[in-house]
Amino acid sequence: MPSIRHKSEVASPERPTVTSPDDNYLDAAREAILAVGWSRTTLTDIARRAGVSRMTLYRRWPDTQTLLADLMTREWGDVVREATDSGEEATAAQRITGGAVATVRALRGNALLRRIIDVDPEMLLPYLLDRRGRSQDSLAGVLAALVAAGQRDGSVRTGDPDVIARSLVLACHGFALSAHTMTDGPAPARDADVTAYDAELALLVERFLAP
Amino acid sequence: MPSIRHKSEVASPERPTVTSPDDNYLDAAREAILAVGWSRTTLTDIARRAGVSRMTLYRRWPDTQTLLADLMTREWGDVVREATDSGEEATAAQRITGGAVATVRALRGNALLRRIIDVDPEMLLPYLLDRRGRSQDSLAGVLAALVAAGQRDGSVRTGDPDVIARSLVLACHGFALSAHTMTDGPAPARDADVTAYDAELALLVERFLAP
Repeated sequence: MPSIRHKSEVASPERPTVTSPDDNYLDAAREAILAVGWSRTTLTDIARRAGVSRMTLYRRWPDTQTLLADLMTREWGDVVREATDSGEEATAAQRITGGAVATVRALRGNALLRRIIDVDPEMLLPYLLDRRGRSQDSLAGVLAALVAAGQRDGSVRTGDPDVIARSLVLACHGFALSAHTMTDGPAPARDADVTAYDAELALLVERFLAP
Repeated sequence: MPSIRHKSEVASPERPTVTSPDDNYLDAAREAILAVGWSRTTLTDIARRAGVSRMTLYRRWPDTQTLLADLMTREWGDVVREATDSGEEATAAQRITGGAVATVRALRGNALLRRIIDVDPEMLLPYLLDRRGRSQDSLAGVLAALVAAGQRDGSVRTGDPDVIARSLVLACHGFALSAHTMTDGPAPARDADVTAYDAELALLVERFLAP
């Protein structure tokens, strides 16, 4: 996965900068999903793409779903880290606002998420209807730490940091998955210009956090 | 469908207070979905429950999907109308805020939506990923009219009323479908107490609209 990875300074879970064997296997799984879709991806296919035996993968992951869950966790973690990594904002509130909009925009353009939406959209349902996934949970945790930091630097209102952070995640769901459905006109819906909604999201987050 | 229906005064599409034959058929379809789920509901089953012939329904709707789409439009329209109908709020902004929270709460408790989520959750995906449904479109239209009214009465900031209204719908998606996933604790997730998130949503909408 030739993506740029920065180390985050504050409150983000560390991602090792040295590539581990796991990363190579997850790269192979990512390739497989992009090629054939989630539900048709098998351990055998991933092993072939990684140039190892099926047994090598099997020793690490009991089944394809567990491996793909690890891939998702890595992928969305990378998206959030890259989107929130500029570090140029003056206050925690500004960092959350910029990071929320950048994350939503990055998710919308993410090749893996697009492929899942095109081929296996029902894979999203558990994370909308049943439970937080590991990535949603981790994102909410990072946000809660930033909210607490903002309460200390005076840029964020009082309130339970977890509830404020999780509310932000809830508010962002629609902007990440559905903003294009709120556009009109002849362009292919998913590639529609949603700049206006990004601007509204920035205002929404900024005002939601303000003291 | 033994729900209470009020006539809305402002900006809501009218719903006839006299029950039409269509309403009886839609009631029968609603019963069928609650009994066997969306994907197993057939025109024959609906006709039987309504006490009419399959041909009677067929003359009105070409297929089950079209009939069920009309049922959804009626159901969500009723939910929104009932939730936004108090008319006691002083300003348009207050009406939007109260209506948004009440609508989200009513959708969460709606028997038909719960049944769809339990049995046929994939029915939701087109309305999240592909296009606005008629009800989302109608709701966005009602909200846009209220936003414009709020811009006239000075309770809502400037901006394109359609973009502001549709942004509110996007922000509400997560609160309606996923708030329970943001709770912790041992209770069955969907019946978890999400009062804290309703309060956050109210604050979010109020601040998002403020001049």
